[in-house]
Amino acid sequence: MVALVVHGGAGHWVEAERDAAVAGVRRAAAAGWRILDAGGTALDAVAAAVAALEDDPLFNAGRGAVLNAEGEVELDASIMAGDTLASGGVTCLRRVKNPVLVARRVMETTDCVLLAGAAATAFAREQGFADFDPVTDRRRARWEAERQSAARDDSVPGTVGAVALDAGGRLAAATSTGGRELKRPGRVGDSPVPGAGNYATAQAAVSATGWGEYMLRMATAKAIATRIEGGATPDAAAAAVLAEMQRVFGTPIGVICLDARGAIGVVHGTEGMPHAWRVHGDREVGARFAV
Amino acid sequence: MVALVVHGGAGHWVEAERDAAVAGVRRAAAAGWRILDAGGTALDAVAAAVAALEDDPLFNAGRGAVLNAEGEVELDASIMAGDTLASGGVTCLRRVKNPVLVARRVMETTDCVLLAGAAATAFAREQGFADFDPVTDRRRARWEAERQSAARDDSVPGTVGAVALDAGGRLAAATSTGGRELKRPGRVGDSPVPGAGNYATAQAAVSATGWGEYMLRMATAKAIATRIEGGATPDAAAAAVLAEMQRVFGTPIGVICLDARGAIGVVHGTEGMPHAWRVHGDREVGARFAV
Repeated sequence: MVALVVHGGAGHWVEAERDAAVAGVRRAAAAGWRILDAGGTALDAVAAAVAALEDDPLFNAGRGAVLNAEGEVELDASIMAGDTLASGGVTCLRRVKNPVLVARRVMETTDCVLLAGAAATAFAREQGFADFDPVTDRRRARWEAERQSAARDDSVPGTVGAVALDAGGRLAAATSTGGRELKRPGRVGDSPVPGAGNYATAQAAVSATGWGEYMLRMATAKAIATRIEGGATPDAAAAAVLAEMQRVFGTPIGVICLDARGAIGVVHGTEGMPHAWRVHGDREVGARFAV
Repeated sequence: MVALVVHGGAGHWVEAERDAAVAGVRRAAAAGWRILDAGGTALDAVAAAVAALEDDPLFNAGRGAVLNAEGEVELDASIMAGDTLASGGVTCLRRVKNPVLVARRVMETTDCVLLAGAAATAFAREQGFADFDPVTDRRRARWEAERQSAARDDSVPGTVGAVALDAGGRLAAATSTGGRELKRPGRVGDSPVPGAGNYATAQAAVSATGWGEYMLRMATAKAIATRIEGGATPDAAAAAVLAEMQRVFGTPIGVICLDARGAIGVVHGTEGMPHAWRVHGDREVGARFAV
């Protein structure tokens, strides 16, 4: 049994972009699936899927990430291997094409789990990641309009993520984002933090999206993983924590998750969250805008 | 019922400093207790107790924090209010006397939960926190010796913390640290991250200490709080997660925690962890090096 789910963000998607978003998550899932199908690891699969989403300027991660209050892009990402609980992350990373791949280097080449700010960017350069400007004309134009506007337009989708189970029974999760538009420089969101926006154990892999501060305060991904470990199905676990987030904070979240038998959970409290999935065995394959 | 527990770190304390450490945590507890006893909030009490530990150069937090690989001090701290799940934190903060008070300003004056690096330091200045050099001659001398030594001396105690319950039934937790000696600049530890080294809910307050990367990977403080919310006593909850950390990572932790009835949990897998506690009602008062 191998399985993969990816999502492209649970924010507000304008009607005109929904098909493109579904096509984008389908391509990202295909990139991850090629790895799993060839006997590769869940870790490689989630890294490839999230890197594909980072490369697609439609999504708020890597190229196409939204700008902060100073008109800069600061990127957050993390990746986690369920079998070892190894985790790597970067926050407030600048001018890198694929933050999720830098996060993986943090995991694999340092004794740290999370690197922040200028030091994270310096680490990326040490590791050979070239200087790359992730700002697109479209995001810049939007930022120029938004920062002068009293009424905020919330039609920028959030965080992207992937979860996978490989043939060796290993689970992994990866998450990447540009964070909130007009965010304060130096703000750390949930995506780079294990237990908040991303988490994987021997029994559960979780990637979540939503208002980062609420996810940090709830330790949302850990809460979902704990429920799966306690015997809940991924769908039930994610739905329970979504309900808790709505009750406590009045805020919706989006979640993709997997258990070690390849059961999938996809929930969102928003109108949509483009996602794609594929599971061997019972041959579930699909991509859609909303559950 | 009001209650307070503080600790001064579960690292290796040399024999000669243990009495001073116990005296230090006793003073910090007294600072917190004065607030609770006067009808103040748990949040004010943990902030005062942790600020007192930051001011004491014996402890690895605030003044007396250990130096990183570049000979600089980078400070991590957070504070959390259980009744609202409000949380604030700073990581890689430089040249500030009381990181826990900056963390509280993040919580109370921004829409962020965690600020990192140069932006965190800039925020502290905006908020009126003066430039302050936390490096002591003793830590500098130690760093000079350590960075040239093959055999590392691990006799620098870690993270400090406090948990409190006030007369209004509100729980709070605060945690502060200089992190690991010779750490990579930009490294984010567990202390500033809700769910990792610090956590508070309506039913549980937790401050933990140990190897930060393992605590991030386990989401240790959230795991302990979840067990308390599930009905475990604070001592049993902390002991169960300590055992899990030892089983999975082979690493000990130290934990102080409280539930909403004022029951205290204190556990450490190390030889000691100076701590002090006080509980009204059954009038438990004490301070000691080890459980």
